[in-house]
Amino acid sequence: MSIYQYSFPTLIHFGPGTRKKVASHLMENRVRRPLVVTDRGVSAEPFFLDFMKELRASGLEAQDYSEVYGNPVKSQVTQGVASYRAHHADGIVGIGGGAALDVAKAIALMIHHPGDLFDYEDGKLNGLPIEREIPHWVALPTTAGTGSEVGRSAVISDVHTHIKKIIFSPRLLAKAVFADPEMTIGLPAKITAETGMDALTHCVESYLAKGYHPICDGIALEGVRLAARSLARAVHAPANLEARSDMMMSSMMGAVAFQKGLGLTHSCAHALSTVTDMHHGLANGLMIDHALAFNVTAVPERFSVLAQTVGLKRELDFIPWLRNLKAEIGVPDRLSTLKVDRESLEELSEIADRDGCHASNPRVCTREDFRRIFHEAF
Amino acid sequence: MSIYQYSFPTLIHFGPGTRKKVASHLMENRVRRPLVVTDRGVSAEPFFLDFMKELRASGLEAQDYSEVYGNPVKSQVTQGVASYRAHHADGIVGIGGGAALDVAKAIALMIHHPGDLFDYEDGKLNGLPIEREIPHWVALPTTAGTGSEVGRSAVISDVHTHIKKIIFSPRLLAKAVFADPEMTIGLPAKITAETGMDALTHCVESYLAKGYHPICDGIALEGVRLAARSLARAVHAPANLEARSDMMMSSMMGAVAFQKGLGLTHSCAHALSTVTDMHHGLANGLMIDHALAFNVTAVPERFSVLAQTVGLKRELDFIPWLRNLKAEIGVPDRLSTLKVDRESLEELSEIADRDGCHASNPRVCTREDFRRIFHEAF
Repeated sequence: MSIYQYSFPTLIHFGPGTRKKVASHLMENRVRRPLVVTDRGVSAEPFFLDFMKELRASGLEAQDYSEVYGNPVKSQVTQGVASYRAHHADGIVGIGGGAALDVAKAIALMIHHPGDLFDYEDGKLNGLPIEREIPHWVALPTTAGTGSEVGRSAVISDVHTHIKKIIFSPRLLAKAVFADPEMTIGLPAKITAETGMDALTHCVESYLAKGYHPICDGIALEGVRLAARSLARAVHAPANLEARSDMMMSSMMGAVAFQKGLGLTHSCAHALSTVTDMHHGLANGLMIDHALAFNVTAVPERFSVLAQTVGLKRELDFIPWLRNLKAEIGVPDRLSTLKVDRESLEELSEIADRDGCHASNPRVCTREDFRRIFHEAF
Repeated sequence: MSIYQYSFPTLIHFGPGTRKKVASHLMENRVRRPLVVTDRGVSAEPFFLDFMKELRASGLEAQDYSEVYGNPVKSQVTQGVASYRAHHADGIVGIGGGAALDVAKAIALMIHHPGDLFDYEDGKLNGLPIEREIPHWVALPTTAGTGSEVGRSAVISDVHTHIKKIIFSPRLLAKAVFADPEMTIGLPAKITAETGMDALTHCVESYLAKGYHPICDGIALEGVRLAARSLARAVHAPANLEARSDMMMSSMMGAVAFQKGLGLTHSCAHALSTVTDMHHGLANGLMIDHALAFNVTAVPERFSVLAQTVGLKRELDFIPWLRNLKAEIGVPDRLSTLKVDRESLEELSEIADRDGCHASNPRVCTREDFRRIFHEAF
């Protein structure tokens, strides 16, 4: 048996209306001039305009920076740092989906760390260490999928090469999360479904991942239970606050749990994003049943617990259950329907094989296995 | 729906042999002269003597303070603070069961906080605030029950009145936990059984407690699963490291999960400890099935999940399963066999009713209900 490390340090404020507690939290933590980092979409939402108004009404000199869009690139961070300095800001609020929260983290990093953002890339040869304090920052997720609000990494792309760079440090963790499911009520069905599949995939793959990690297992399984009871409801009854709460919680639980590890579905999804720029949640949702079928013989007892957790009687029913769920919420099941070329399957298999996520997969997966899985999903 | 707060901040190093990582951890955190707080029993164990030797061989000026015994009282803390100062210590290692870890926390508190320990009692009128840093301290549990190593409170008794005072603050959290199941191999069957029932009760009651807290629910359920598969094994095959690991993990998971709340079993157990000085784990183990039967009608779906989690088919089987487990590991089932007077049942009901733990019980429990439960358990 090996030695493991566990830590779950983020303070999470959870519940409808939690966003209204941000102003007093900032005051208590001596933040007076927050930079509010968000994406273009969120910046036009009524809840965002109200949020800014309330911060200002509480006496805060809040300035928004809303130039996040698409897969975030370095220039968005650089521009955000400039906004921070121009505003003489003393703290950061990140509000949005994974992209806005990642940019908020990267801006926070660069305030007291000199040099270029990519000097801090995780594992970079001769890179710079993340060793200083970062400004007080808090995270407000507006989607229920990536769980970036409880994560310790930021993914920012190089604008020229399109390569995603990972900046990782426990110092990047938000000082507090304000998870307010009311902000997800307006999400369209398609985004709810795809981000929801991302959350579910995080939970399922971290539960199946190798290693002795019962705390993550428990969090992951309960995250699966929430998604099983609420994902379809959130898609079809978008204003159902109970379903929205469950999905926001499931998303955070998936991201907390995956410190244990992920699996081959994520390696497939990363390949699809690299080659076809496919949305990560959609890629996970499309691939999950095709990929996980590969794992059943390796850990049948875990599939049995998963089946129980989603309310089924028989262990072998979990994969068909995933398939039904996808059909119910409109997540596509075939690569061919998404204009992925049959010719790209070889490249996809190669990239998936090189991806690090399947190192913790419960069954060893070779490039040939990936090829078979991609062909089957085609 | 209300707003909830979640935080799980302790860094846990887990696994056989983890205790050997303490020296380098202390060095990295600039602790050179640790005071090692333990109880009289542990201080005579070979693993403890080796532990001290290794700290010293690593260049640390380690001094032990082993005057913890029984239910800890304030004088043990005062004496420990004096040892800390005499040694010019710069950090604390707590190693032992709940008592030693609680005394370690209280000593750490008093180093930079003036006045009397009980001035810091939780909720005391005109008490003093816990607002300063405490010395770097780390926890090494040697039993698998209370989970005090991941807790933020210390329970210390007044030597005159025998009343237990609770000192509570997130600042009391250990900076790191080194959970090494090898140290529990030598525990006698009776202590393994009673502390194990404590862990199981924490997990079950926090899962059943009111409130929306899926992270704790997940951790609690997985803690139940571990105890179900390993408690009897740990009792009957004491050197089985897998079972010992599961129980040490289950114990920490129970203590992490009960930030959600506990229930009426704990109120019964607190009454029994106050009136008869009964060991807390024994009291929980004796009462759990008698007390929880009261909750089944309130949350049948939760009992159904519990039954599933321990491997049963029918929801109603969870209480009989508890009864079988107790019989299997030798935990007594009747108050009368432990020389509790029938006359004391009234006082027990009164104290249980006043106890705070059943505020989060899923079904309202009156003094009359407690009376019925105690009579039934008699």
